[in-house]
Amino acid sequence: MPTITAFKTSPDKGAGLARDMRVRWALEETGQPYDVRLVTFEEMKQPAHLKRQPFGQIPTYEEGDVTLFESGAIVFHIAEHHPGLLPTAAAPRARAISWMFAALNTVEPPIVERDHVKHFEAGKSWQAERFALVDERIRTRLDQLAEAFGTADWLAGTFSAADILMVHAIRRLEGSGILESYPVFTDYIARAADRPAYRRAFEAQHKVFLNASSA
Amino acid sequence: MPTITAFKTSPDKGAGLARDMRVRWALEETGQPYDVRLVTFEEMKQPAHLKRQPFGQIPTYEEGDVTLFESGAIVFHIAEHHPGLLPTAAAPRARAISWMFAALNTVEPPIVERDHVKHFEAGKSWQAERFALVDERIRTRLDQLAEAFGTADWLAGTFSAADILMVHAIRRLEGSGILESYPVFTDYIARAADRPAYRRAFEAQHKVFLNASSA
Repeated sequence: MPTITAFKTSPDKGAGLARDMRVRWALEETGQPYDVRLVTFEEMKQPAHLKRQPFGQIPTYEEGDVTLFESGAIVFHIAEHHPGLLPTAAAPRARAISWMFAALNTVEPPIVERDHVKHFEAGKSWQAERFALVDERIRTRLDQLAEAFGTADWLAGTFSAADILMVHAIRRLEGSGILESYPVFTDYIARAADRPAYRRAFEAQHKVFLNASSA
Repeated sequence: MPTITAFKTSPDKGAGLARDMRVRWALEETGQPYDVRLVTFEEMKQPAHLKRQPFGQIPTYEEGDVTLFESGAIVFHIAEHHPGLLPTAAAPRARAISWMFAALNTVEPPIVERDHVKHFEAGKSWQAERFALVDERIRTRLDQLAEAFGTADWLAGTFSAADILMVHAIRRLEGSGILESYPVFTDYIARAADRPAYRRAFEAQHKVFLNASSA
């Protein structure tokens, strides 16, 4: 059974935004049981964790002598070893993998940058102007994504690992006012959040927060 | 034979920073011949290209009915189908794939953000302060990367697709003064640039610039 790591105290207060959510969701979609090792911010900086994750982040994934880090790599590993997260035919599989990388490398970076503006440029005279610049980058990506998405339910035709990464990346925009102007994406997120595997993953992650709060 | 797309007129003036370099390099390492379709910025926004690349970027990769976009996805596809770019044993292969995603998702984003500060925040009163913030993020990542790298020649023990992505991501820092304070990385880049496959890829890309300049 694989062991993943997750925040002992998640900064998002159990809202499902920490990146172990992606891994939990992929494991639930493929019906894999898993163990969780909770780590504090202190422990994430210690040699034992840095050996697993050189950048001191979560999640990691350990199974036998295989250790992975980076949520994208872990979700891909799960998709490679268990059916249900990637099409099997060459052309749609290649497309789904392209979308996985697009979620992480093209769509997510400006969204993460927005969090930097919010948290690390608070109180700066330029914060409003920076929000405008970053929000424009985000909207350009969402416009292009919406165009490519069309009326489909999922990025690669059927549900795939690409949807796990994309839904999770854009969920970080909830409450920003940006996502709300794209019904195509609020519908997409709702469709994803309605999947039993998503719900089990979300609840398992949320429970960590509830337990930490009541401790 | 696969066909890739590349800039007809690269903004980096043939310095090897455009992302088709990653794909050319992977193809050269595995000894695959390839065709190149050069596209203008105008053409990148047209439906024919958007069908291949929903975000209007380069590179893309087409072979038979398989079409990929995102340099990470393409390099992975090449590594999956041809020996030489990924270890075959499960544990080192998983490690190499983790490093591929780390190059693209953890190391590259603040480096790309630095380009935004340089180009899109030029003339803003806050530019210097923003450079300081972003450079600190970059140095944190490089410090962690240097620690993990140790005295190794390549990220996953032997040369792999992870090195293609990591070397190309950090090369974008050349001339910033940051990279130069990490001999471990200037050595790493020099080691990579000395590979015959790198040189062939670089020269092929540079030739496009020379041809465009003399046209």
